[in-house]
Amino acid sequence: MRAAVVRKDKFVVEDIAEPVATEGQVLARVRKCGICGSDLHMFKHGAQMMEDQRALGIEPDDLTNGLVLGHEFVAEIESFGPGTAQDLSVGQRVCSVPFLGTAAGIVPIGASTKTTGAYAEKIALTEAMLIPVPDAVSDEAAALAEPVAVGLHAVNKANMADGEAGIVIGCGPIGLAVIAILKMRGATQIVAADLSPKRRALAEAMGATKVVDPRDESPYEGVATAAVYECTGVNGVLADIVKHAPLKAKVVVAGIANGDDSFTPMLAVAKELTFIFVTYYEPQEFVEALQAIADGHINWQAWITGEVGLDGIQAAFSALGNPETHAKILIDPSSSATL
Amino acid sequence: MRAAVVRKDKFVVEDIAEPVATEGQVLARVRKCGICGSDLHMFKHGAQMMEDQRALGIEPDDLTNGLVLGHEFVAEIESFGPGTAQDLSVGQRVCSVPFLGTAAGIVPIGASTKTTGAYAEKIALTEAMLIPVPDAVSDEAAALAEPVAVGLHAVNKANMADGEAGIVIGCGPIGLAVIAILKMRGATQIVAADLSPKRRALAEAMGATKVVDPRDESPYEGVATAAVYECTGVNGVLADIVKHAPLKAKVVVAGIANGDDSFTPMLAVAKELTFIFVTYYEPQEFVEALQAIADGHINWQAWITGEVGLDGIQAAFSALGNPETHAKILIDPSSSATL
Repeated sequence: MRAAVVRKDKFVVEDIAEPVATEGQVLARVRKCGICGSDLHMFKHGAQMMEDQRALGIEPDDLTNGLVLGHEFVAEIESFGPGTAQDLSVGQRVCSVPFLGTAAGIVPIGASTKTTGAYAEKIALTEAMLIPVPDAVSDEAAALAEPVAVGLHAVNKANMADGEAGIVIGCGPIGLAVIAILKMRGATQIVAADLSPKRRALAEAMGATKVVDPRDESPYEGVATAAVYECTGVNGVLADIVKHAPLKAKVVVAGIANGDDSFTPMLAVAKELTFIFVTYYEPQEFVEALQAIADGHINWQAWITGEVGLDGIQAAFSALGNPETHAKILIDPSSSATL
Repeated sequence: MRAAVVRKDKFVVEDIAEPVATEGQVLARVRKCGICGSDLHMFKHGAQMMEDQRALGIEPDDLTNGLVLGHEFVAEIESFGPGTAQDLSVGQRVCSVPFLGTAAGIVPIGASTKTTGAYAEKIALTEAMLIPVPDAVSDEAAALAEPVAVGLHAVNKANMADGEAGIVIGCGPIGLAVIAILKMRGATQIVAADLSPKRRALAEAMGATKVVDPRDESPYEGVATAAVYECTGVNGVLADIVKHAPLKAKVVVAGIANGDDSFTPMLAVAKELTFIFVTYYEPQEFVEALQAIADGHINWQAWITGEVGLDGIQAAFSALGNPETHAKILIDPSSSATL
């Protein structure tokens, strides 16, 4: 099958072996896969990220074996492996949390060389984790369930009170997902900050009640109580939030700054801030995210700015470096489209 | 009246004007006042701390006007100012949250030049904030209500689940208060870490189920879920907690590191840690702390290691620099004792 494999600092579309569906797994054909900010990060900093895993007690993969990214996918079941219940039919469209149960343990799909990610024609999935996609939900919409689940998890962790403002710092895909979920949950004050005019326009399209360019205006102006969502991953932004956020603010940290980052503890203590570091989601939150899309709560149409085939990934990664041109680009492995 | 005034880098016992009880205030005679770690910090870094307040939008005091520290006090009512209800009698022993309501706003007692702290014979207090001390509670015990309230607030903010371990990093007065409250609340696993053998012995006396010297042993050994209490205020300790704390740990930050401090966000995100920065307590928590002491839940006798008069404060501050000799030293303004 064809797959876009990371080879040093570029994507090479190669013919590689199809995954084999082992005990409890299915083989699925990828219909669409979103390009995630973390894919961009892993493409650029993969070797360092693997090294960092040692601090978590994880033996890192050897990326020279060839990494296939892609974890925001919708796929259709092609065949069932041994020991499967087969409650769903061949051809059924499915999403899944991007983890594969294997005899050797749980492997992240699209972030490991131990299984193939969805920048490929086919992937192996765990049958027990499959979430059927309702017929009325398009492939494009279903591919966004994963990033929407990240936003939903972040908002759930903040456990906001009625009347609390949601302040979103950084309007990349995760910031936009947070905004969409805040809107769905009925937050009356959703302030979004981004340096990019295009991203601010997207933030409005997703439901922000106010957008600011942080160089010109403080997002905290007139806000008494808030959950602040750090969605930039830029070093120094957390320190800035600590300086300017209102008393008792909950700071949900969804972005990941590189290496070490610093802030002023005296200010965090005096304001009694809380930092809530978040990653991924619970499986139930993924199901809820897909349902939110199915129910029309997420303006996903505004979010998708392009679609490419496997040969277009390299150019798509370059284009995503400019926030003025693109937000979410989908990959269709059956397509030959480029930007 | 006599008061120990901070003059540059030393205490000078001077005759200063008695405070005047204005609208809603009482004049009270100080019976005992504890020396707090934050007093030591303010004595050493007061000018910098005042400057830091600008970042919170507070116009700092000019410390050259003469600062009188002391906010862990028990006092007796001597006279009532205008507009007071006078429900309590002259001579009644009282504690209070260390804030004074004045016509110009709320002033922290023992941390401002706008009112006199309790390293003095008399203080002004707000009548509406007075908490009567039960007759069965000694002055020594009542003077500990304030630091116990700090520990109680920290533990309340962690909102620990049944079976969660309490891990206390640093066994100064706040760490010891946290341990005592964890014990009172029935925590079955209370691990205390300190470099000092004396402080580890005190931690055991207050209720720690295990003490460790962090140079020899990890406090996280065998701990699956935990609230970790940062009670050192030493730069770099938070980064160490982020490295070693278990997944999903709540990190309650009660210590205040100097200036900026750093940590590795990737680890905090991957572990989904929460940092809960805490300071002071709610008035109701102060009342609850005094009640915990009255009910015999706090082994306060182990905690107090010395008592001095106003002339002994300078030497007491020096002695508190060595954790092997002292933990909590009380001041009795009517005494001429020295260490």
